[in-house]
Amino acid sequence: MATHFYTAASLDGFIATDEHGLEWLFVQDFDLQGPMAYPGFIEGIGALAMGASTYEWLRRNQQVWEYVQPTWVFTHRALPGPDGADVRFVQGAPAEVIDQIVASALGKDVWVVGGGDLAAQFGDAGLLDELWVQFAPVTLGSGKPLYTGALQLELVEVARNADFVCTRYRVRRDH
Amino acid sequence: MATHFYTAASLDGFIATDEHGLEWLFVQDFDLQGPMAYPGFIEGIGALAMGASTYEWLRRNQQVWEYVQPTWVFTHRALPGPDGADVRFVQGAPAEVIDQIVASALGKDVWVVGGGDLAAQFGDAGLLDELWVQFAPVTLGSGKPLYTGALQLELVEVARNADFVCTRYRVRRDH
Repeated sequence: MATHFYTAASLDGFIATDEHGLEWLFVQDFDLQGPMAYPGFIEGIGALAMGASTYEWLRRNQQVWEYVQPTWVFTHRALPGPDGADVRFVQGAPAEVIDQIVASALGKDVWVVGGGDLAAQFGDAGLLDELWVQFAPVTLGSGKPLYTGALQLELVEVARNADFVCTRYRVRRDH
Repeated sequence: MATHFYTAASLDGFIATDEHGLEWLFVQDFDLQGPMAYPGFIEGIGALAMGASTYEWLRRNQQVWEYVQPTWVFTHRALPGPDGADVRFVQGAPAEVIDQIVASALGKDVWVVGGGDLAAQFGDAGLLDELWVQFAPVTLGSGKPLYTGALQLELVEVARNADFVCTRYRVRRDH
């Protein structure tokens, strides 16, 4: 079992514009059969964790809730859940909930979907095993940060996938 | 003749800590004979451009001024120049000085050394041809931004060099 932060980002380290926009991302070319692509990644995932902004973005922008895995949403607000989906709203720090998240993944891995601040809460608590970033060929100049904490990493893999530079890192705990 | 912004950065898009620190960078492994390394790059460079902070950092941290090329420092302050080096202090926008910089490069390329704000001034004025970023395997969480503007890019090359993910992009002007 491992916990992954897997995300796309601009080359200057933003996962969305200041207004949560992702138009700059979706215009890029990406080969779903290529290296480090989403279909292969999601196969190994047994549970998702995300912040309230990411959850609300997905609700606004997806026709249907597309995840079959239990999804843990970190929020202090009362939010509506999608019909028929296994979405669990939780408060508190990742360390208080990680055992439940892991148990719900039934032996598979956990995907921290975002944002960068929730991912850094996992990282700060020593709960992040891997960081995967697919860099789009743009700079934004400002936006929502990729990750708001400090990590020492070990490069596992790098590859080009169409317009993207795909990277995979192991989080180093020896620091 | 082309103008390149060539720089190292953290994975989350910072070229230095908030205190201008680069310790996180210099502890990483880099093969000077490997892909997109500095010795091969600097051979093609005929002139340098940099902001005042970058210049002052180099003056504090280099025993001797190591560049033989004319170096253009964008600053509104009166700064001391290194003995015997060709350092030229200029005010104003890159567009007002680019012809002089290019002329001083004697047919070779121009390297915009940094920081990210000066590079974005070149980019905003349509004066940047290529962006090269060598990503170190760390996140900083905050610091001096890699680039403070918006660019559309085309991926030219990506390679691993020891601990680094080295990328090279062409700036797209069709946007």
